[in-house]
Amino acid sequence: MAKAVIQAEAEADLGRSAQKRRAILKAATEVFLKAGYLGTNMDEIAALSGVSKQTVYKNFASKEALFVEIVSSMTNMTGDMVHNDAPKLGDGDVAAYLEDYAYRQLAAVLTPRIMQLRRLVIGEVGRFPELAKVLYERGPLRAMGMLARVFEGLAGQGHLRFDDAMVAASHFNWLVMSDALNVAMLLGDAAIPKPAELRRQAAQGVRVFLAAYGAGK
Amino acid sequence: MAKAVIQAEAEADLGRSAQKRRAILKAATEVFLKAGYLGTNMDEIAALSGVSKQTVYKNFASKEALFVEIVSSMTNMTGDMVHNDAPKLGDGDVAAYLEDYAYRQLAAVLTPRIMQLRRLVIGEVGRFPELAKVLYERGPLRAMGMLARVFEGLAGQGHLRFDDAMVAASHFNWLVMSDALNVAMLLGDAAIPKPAELRRQAAQGVRVFLAAYGAGK
Repeated sequence: MAKAVIQAEAEADLGRSAQKRRAILKAATEVFLKAGYLGTNMDEIAALSGVSKQTVYKNFASKEALFVEIVSSMTNMTGDMVHNDAPKLGDGDVAAYLEDYAYRQLAAVLTPRIMQLRRLVIGEVGRFPELAKVLYERGPLRAMGMLARVFEGLAGQGHLRFDDAMVAASHFNWLVMSDALNVAMLLGDAAIPKPAELRRQAAQGVRVFLAAYGAGK
Repeated sequence: MAKAVIQAEAEADLGRSAQKRRAILKAATEVFLKAGYLGTNMDEIAALSGVSKQTVYKNFASKEALFVEIVSSMTNMTGDMVHNDAPKLGDGDVAAYLEDYAYRQLAAVLTPRIMQLRRLVIGEVGRFPELAKVLYERGPLRAMGMLARVFEGLAGQGHLRFDDAMVAASHFNWLVMSDALNVAMLLGDAAIPKPAELRRQAAQGVRVFLAAYGAGK
């Protein structure tokens, strides 16, 4: 075969592999959230994703590896969405900038899918502590780390003042998120606040945050 | 029988009833936390508490009623402990007063038993939404309501300033509790912060709270 043909076929193989992998992840997410971690088996995931069980195992060594991949990709996507899409502050108002950041974080995290995932791993901490540990590290811990770096930048520009960027990031994170998160955890997806209420909570949280950490204009 | 004898026997009956009720609640708490809500049955609770299944049902109409009673008594006890034992502010320092309140709340709530209960109901929100609703109402919502009344008193004495006592109470609650609660939820009982760390988090949370809501001296 000509070199170009071989290359095209290799690319098509790669495309098919990536497609299968995506189908497995999508099906697995459905099954995990519906049946719980213990109640999920690889046969059902294979059947739902339209691939063989062997293909599932070729992509993911175990049920745990598959679950960890789901948590990672979901939390990475959410974190990137909040962080990478963040506008630059420029000459703008720091309060408005932080309110926007807070609202985008709330809107990205307070989704039925992520709330269901969080409830699932919390309910399984006793039996499967590793699952929640992954969610903790890739979710809130990573988000607060990214926020701490943003805050260091803002402090460098004279907008914020603090001793410990991680403590400031934690206070910001929980001032903004906790009420909505607690309600969603305990009262279910239907209790996730609507966008207008999330904006109100973002603004109220930022006001308290800036009273403590703002450096004036 | 003489009146005194009848009365003494009636009191002994009441005492035995109360004792049986306590034994059932204690046994049920163990079984629920070990086996989960779905995995718990009334036979096991009866066996562990040393009473007949009939006696269990005489005290609690259903598994749900029994669970609700456990959540209620555990959260009421915790809330009362934080709230009723609170010292009066008097002429003292409002920051020290709030730090003490915050620390006592953290120490009362961040216990393995309450964390296990919270994880259990969160994991069952999909199947048994009523359980978490009870925890929400008797736990954080009640605690924040009591806190709001404390804050209204402090505002009346000129120590705090706010538009909405419930928003101030929510900010206080989550500034102080969220980091520890999130860690305990996701990393398990062994990750519950030690008293010195809880004191540090209480002090940091109060500092931010007072920057926004303090009224100076």
